[in-house]
Amino acid sequence: MNTIGKSFRITAWGESHGKALGAVVDGCPSNLPLTGEDIQKELNRRRPGYSLFSTPRKEGDKVEILSGIFEGKTTGTPISAIVYNTNQKSKDYSHLKNTPRPGHADLSYKLKYGNYDYRGGGRSSGRTTIGHTIGGAIAKKLLDYTHNIKIIGYTTKIGNIEGDFNYYNSIENNEKMINEELINKIENNPLRCPSSNADEMKDFVLNAMENKNSVGGVIELIALNVPVGVGNPIFGKLNGELSNAIMNINAVKGVEIGRGFESAELLGSEMNDEYYYDENNNIKLKTNNCGGVLGGISCGAPLVIRVAVKPTPSISAVQSTINIENKTTENLEIGGRHDPIIVPRVIPVLESMVAIALSDLMIRGGFIHPCKL
Amino acid sequence: MNTIGKSFRITAWGESHGKALGAVVDGCPSNLPLTGEDIQKELNRRRPGYSLFSTPRKEGDKVEILSGIFEGKTTGTPISAIVYNTNQKSKDYSHLKNTPRPGHADLSYKLKYGNYDYRGGGRSSGRTTIGHTIGGAIAKKLLDYTHNIKIIGYTTKIGNIEGDFNYYNSIENNEKMINEELINKIENNPLRCPSSNADEMKDFVLNAMENKNSVGGVIELIALNVPVGVGNPIFGKLNGELSNAIMNINAVKGVEIGRGFESAELLGSEMNDEYYYDENNNIKLKTNNCGGVLGGISCGAPLVIRVAVKPTPSISAVQSTINIENKTTENLEIGGRHDPIIVPRVIPVLESMVAIALSDLMIRGGFIHPCKL
Amino acid sequence: MNTIGKSFRITAWGESHGKALGAVVDGCPSNLPLTGEDIQKELNRRRPGYSLFSTPRKEGDKVEILSGIFEGKTTGTPISAIVYNTNQKSKDYSHLKNTPRPGHADLSYKLKYGNYDYRGGGRSSGRTTIGHTIGGAIAKKLLDYTHNIKIIGYTTKIGNIEGDFNYYNSIENNEKMINEELINKIENNPLRCPSSNADEMKDFVLNAMENKNSVGGVIELIALNVPVGVGNPIFGKLNGELSNAIMNINAVKGVEIGRGFESAELLGSEMNDEYYYDENNNIKLKTNNCGGVLGGISCGAPLVIRVAVKPTPSISAVQSTINIENKTTENLEIGGRHDPIIVPRVIPVLESMVAIALSDLMIRGGFIHPCKL
Amino acid sequence: MNTIGKSFRITAWGESHGKALGAVVDGCPSNLPLTGEDIQKELNRRRPGYSLFSTPRKEGDKVEILSGIFEGKTTGTPISAIVYNTNQKSKDYSHLKNTPRPGHADLSYKLKYGNYDYRGGGRSSGRTTIGHTIGGAIAKKLLDYTHNIKIIGYTTKIGNIEGDFNYYNSIENNEKMINEELINKIENNPLRCPSSNADEMKDFVLNAMENKNSVGGVIELIALNVPVGVGNPIFGKLNGELSNAIMNINAVKGVEIGRGFESAELLGSEMNDEYYYDENNNIKLKTNNCGGVLGGISCGAPLVIRVAVKPTPSISAVQSTINIENKTTENLEIGGRHDPIIVPRVIPVLESMVAIALSDLMIRGGFIHPCKL
Repeated sequence: MNTIGKSFRITAWGESHGKALGAVVDGCPSNLPLTGEDIQKELNRRRPGYSLFSTPRKEGDKVEILSGIFEGKTTGTPISAIVYNTNQKSKDYSHLKNTPRPGHADLSYKLKYGNYDYRGGGRSSGRTTIGHTIGGAIAKKLLDYTHNIKIIGYTTKIGNIEGDFNYYNSIENNEKMINEELINKIENNPLRCPSSNADEMKDFVLNAMENKNSVGGVIELIALNVPVGVGNPIFGKLNGELSNAIMNINAVKGVEIGRGFESAELLGSEMNDEYYYDENNNIKLKTNNCGGVLGGISCGAPLVIRVAVKPTPSISAVQSTINIENKTTENLEIGGRHDPIIVPRVIPVLESMVAIALSDLMIRGGFIHPCKL
Repeated sequence: MNTIGKSFRITAWGESHGKALGAVVDGCPSNLPLTGEDIQKELNRRRPGYSLFSTPRKEGDKVEILSGIFEGKTTGTPISAIVYNTNQKSKDYSHLKNTPRPGHADLSYKLKYGNYDYRGGGRSSGRTTIGHTIGGAIAKKLLDYTHNIKIIGYTTKIGNIEGDFNYYNSIENNEKMINEELINKIENNPLRCPSSNADEMKDFVLNAMENKNSVGGVIELIALNVPVGVGNPIFGKLNGELSNAIMNINAVKGVEIGRGFESAELLGSEMNDEYYYDENNNIKLKTNNCGGVLGGISCGAPLVIRVAVKPTPSISAVQSTINIENKTTENLEIGGRHDPIIVPRVIPVLESMVAIALSDLMIRGGFIHPCKL
Repeated sequence: MNTIGKSFRITAWGESHGKALGAVVDGCPSNLPLTGEDIQKELNRRRPGYSLFSTPRKEGDKVEILSGIFEGKTTGTPISAIVYNTNQKSKDYSHLKNTPRPGHADLSYKLKYGNYDYRGGGRSSGRTTIGHTIGGAIAKKLLDYTHNIKIIGYTTKIGNIEGDFNYYNSIENNEKMINEELINKIENNPLRCPSSNADEMKDFVLNAMENKNSVGGVIELIALNVPVGVGNPIFGKLNGELSNAIMNINAVKGVEIGRGFESAELLGSEMNDEYYYDENNNIKLKTNNCGGVLGGISCGAPLVIRVAVKPTPSISAVQSTINIENKTTENLEIGGRHDPIIVPRVIPVLESMVAIALSDLMIRGGFIHPCKL
Repeated sequence: MNTIGKSFRITAWGESHGKALGAVVDGCPSNLPLTGEDIQKELNRRRPGYSLFSTPRKEGDKVEILSGIFEGKTTGTPISAIVYNTNQKSKDYSHLKNTPRPGHADLSYKLKYGNYDYRGGGRSSGRTTIGHTIGGAIAKKLLDYTHNIKIIGYTTKIGNIEGDFNYYNSIENNEKMINEELINKIENNPLRCPSSNADEMKDFVLNAMENKNSVGGVIELIALNVPVGVGNPIFGKLNGELSNAIMNINAVKGVEIGRGFESAELLGSEMNDEYYYDENNNIKLKTNNCGGVLGGISCGAPLVIRVAVKPTPSISAVQSTINIENKTTENLEIGGRHDPIIVPRVIPVLESMVAIALSDLMIRGGFIHPCKL
């Protein structure tokens, strides 16, 4: 189960401290212009060292495309892309062999597989999202090239500090929401937060960092220009596949579509989005409480998704855990420095997951030809 | 995409006003004792007319098993089960042919498929969850029979009234949480709410009902005795497949695992669940903020899932919508009486989805033999 | 694994002596005109009692469509169709509980599943191909309606009597090969054999019948008007999926595409099919040794498939077998009358399998829209 | 569709003249001892230059494992393996851009994908079976390690010269058939043919070679020690999945199980394999006409499969083809030297496909634990 998708498929592979990581992207139609730079750009957005809040592990994360491109365009054959690890330090992790870190997947893997590459979390490391990001970069290009679909993610909350910029209170709550200005604002902020109170969040993280602790947050993801009709009813719903894709990122603990949990508090008359024809005779929704999905199918309004991200489980403080070899309880101090927050770095990964799920559903739904553009 | 699962597969079919609805359950191993009564019991829990809050459509929802059982046990061949519709009234719906109901899937279906059975919502009707419930009943039996797994759902919030009974504040926050007493309390309450302030919620619903409106709520789902190791890392995560299964129910707008969105507000030191050995040398978690899942794999603690359910979109109040034939905007008054709340009736369906996802992952993971018990 | 297909999916269910058999067809796009008669027509072609060579079990095999059709057309939702068993006689089979019939699947099922419905072969009975035929009837309609694709099967060999009519020696070896006259000739012959020496074959079967024995044969399947480009390279090849579909019929022991095993005897210069432009500037093949498939993808020539069908394993002669309860060897005499040959009755089933595989590949390949015609 | 398998999955990628080729093997359980040498050994068996009959392209085909192994054993995570191309000469192929070679997939790819990497056949090249062989090497190891399953292939026919060694006339027609001596005999023969008349075949190929022509042949594949019960009834049959796997090799034009097409000529009394208990009270078949499969499920006898391989389509003789740019007919002379026969080199690839299909079905069927050995 290292493959996601049915028609547009990402097979990701690699471990934190193995030789390399990569992905095979199968089912991308031919004739899509694609270069290594398209992928590198997205990898750079999730790279360690991207901001003051990320691990100082030095990795260039240089991607090489090994197949599937001919004369600058995809050929419809699988695109294999690889990133070699260059800065792994295995010796740092040997003390973790038998003492699973709380909040991590160490114990689950150990008990499930027996033989577990515990170095840096092995296959459960956040580093494995390199494969997701490779797939997502191609998916984004495909969606943009064929349907002008734009996908964007940003931080709306850190700890209990709610940002003032989100889809529902933004004046850009419309089809032109994603623009150069907003993107720059997001990418230039260390928390990828466009809210006016982003500095307050920053201080909160710095404070946790000093206390050897970590924090979580909430991310909002928006997809514009998704046509009506994407998603299958019953068991292949757009919201189902999006949630699945997003929940497959380790730190995610919650997903909302549109009003999400708030919708439980609304009356039917408040929640229902009424229809009208706009000046160009296009069907529109007066509001977008549904977050762009009705009955599991896109309805033409922007997709609005909120994602809860837990605090990084690697903290420097002493924690109690077990030693599964000795069957004893012991104290664990995870050495090294760690990201005090994963929220900003996970944004490009989550955008990738949305793009991958959308690409797959749109090919399966007849919106993008499965073989050739 | 009317099939869910890879090894344990439910293929659901049927429309609100067609001849019948049903499901084919494929991949259930042989030798599971199973009768029609096992399925009927669960269908009765979601049947219309179950409480004062449900639609008065008179349907017995009597199930008949057509295949896959021999001498009281499953044979490993597909189990086909059918429920005939007996009380459909198609004429009531003809005025909805061209005027999609806000908050419903009418427009999505119409634009996606062209030829749309609009009677009672057709395939997008909540009535189609009969198929889900058939599959869920078999899955529940399988999980209980092989691993003593118990799955339970209950209401924790209606509108903005938060109940005082939930996993995290319950003294039964342990492996014995699900017991006869709790089940009776839930099943005997019209909202399936075991909280002491359930009557307050009931009044709130009655009030909305009088005002021709509808309300939503939040459901908590618990699964006990799930062994360590269920779920695949990366793209077949336990939380991913659970979310997908749950989001495939039309009214769901949000899913949380463990602390969910609250985890975004916690510090790493608060969120991490420390390990210890109990008196029987079993590995335990001191807390269960992770909701039973770490790295996409079950960790031995109970599964804790919270689900946001939106208010029923069918309301009696006048709404504005479009006429897609005339390309005009017009007022719509949906006739008849409707469930003012879907929350209690959707609980057995959500339990079913959890059971189906778990059964599939446990067969694929080697916890349940795929052919024969 | 009672489902075949990825985008066009047939889920078949039911046992020889259960209450009913049927299929759920999922993924058929909306707007295909479809009636029960379209399915009944094909079921009649495989029905017991169809000719002097088939079992006298009296079954009307009346089909009822339960979902997925609205106002005479498909809606894109699953089509559930059912055939009730009316003439099963369970008592005839009780002596087979512990003595597996040679050449049948009895032992394999018994050891694989433990609890085995042995009545009439249960799920391994040829009767289960009712589900395949339901799916095939819809697939044929879809292919004909959208691409004028015609699929035909006929007997080319019985025992060691090679017929003189086959694709490669027929003057109709061209795109107009399948016509009314040929179809009538096939359907009016008890062996579905259009060869001039069909009577010789008939005598051969009658002779085997008198001697309480059974015979096999070879069937040729032709599909006309398949466009260029159907099939995926590498692991979803047209010939791979066709072979899989065909081999999933119990009595089949061999599949050839084009020249098949004869191609092993040809030189490269004889085997290669040269290209040319015809008068209308269409690309054509001078010969069709490849059977319409090159590199796993259709090349525009008719599909030519040959299928080896073994003699019916049920014979009246005494056979030696084991008693798995007593762990002894004993003689077995299978009572009742049986088809002395399965070849003619299996032809509509094989046509169905070709149609199902083609429909699935054509939807996945972008030749047929997955949602709406 | 560059992935095969459901539980044991091979995703193959790469083109003849790209940077590299490889495969990702997902679903191999942990704790299988595995080294690069296990894979290299099989790659060497299919490498160009292996015998006098193979293309002189100089490729070391050195494999590197990039992930999924820790301390000499699999970890249950995806195994990514890569082979870099070192001797591709792209300029040789530019004249083939618009003139598809007869018998090749050039035209099918060109019309299906538009942008086609025509260098050396690109993705349709036989060189892509490097990925299959990587997967097959791991599958073979898994089957041997867990069940002592041995898979062997050998040539039984070249052109019209039928060899005298095959399963049915061999004195080793039993469970000990595959032994060191036979393997040596096969591997030391340039046609991988253990028949006494192998030299006659050799002369036949040399003669065709001199005449700038190519030849085909028939391969027999045997798998020993497959337990009873492998394969799913109805649509996931053992013979169906084996046929699919095998037909996915480009040069294959026919597949037989057991007696195959010969079974069409047998009477039921001749074809049926009677059962008995051997001295150890094991269930045995007196004969093995079924080739180890009944009702789609293994029955304990050796698997016997025959495969028709067409002559290599690349021949030096002048052939007529079209120019799809100019829409004219023209003569084509494919330069360079080519394998006059693909039969011996394809044997390890076919063994791989059998091993892959078996591994997948055995994991899905509960014979091999999906996560951990």
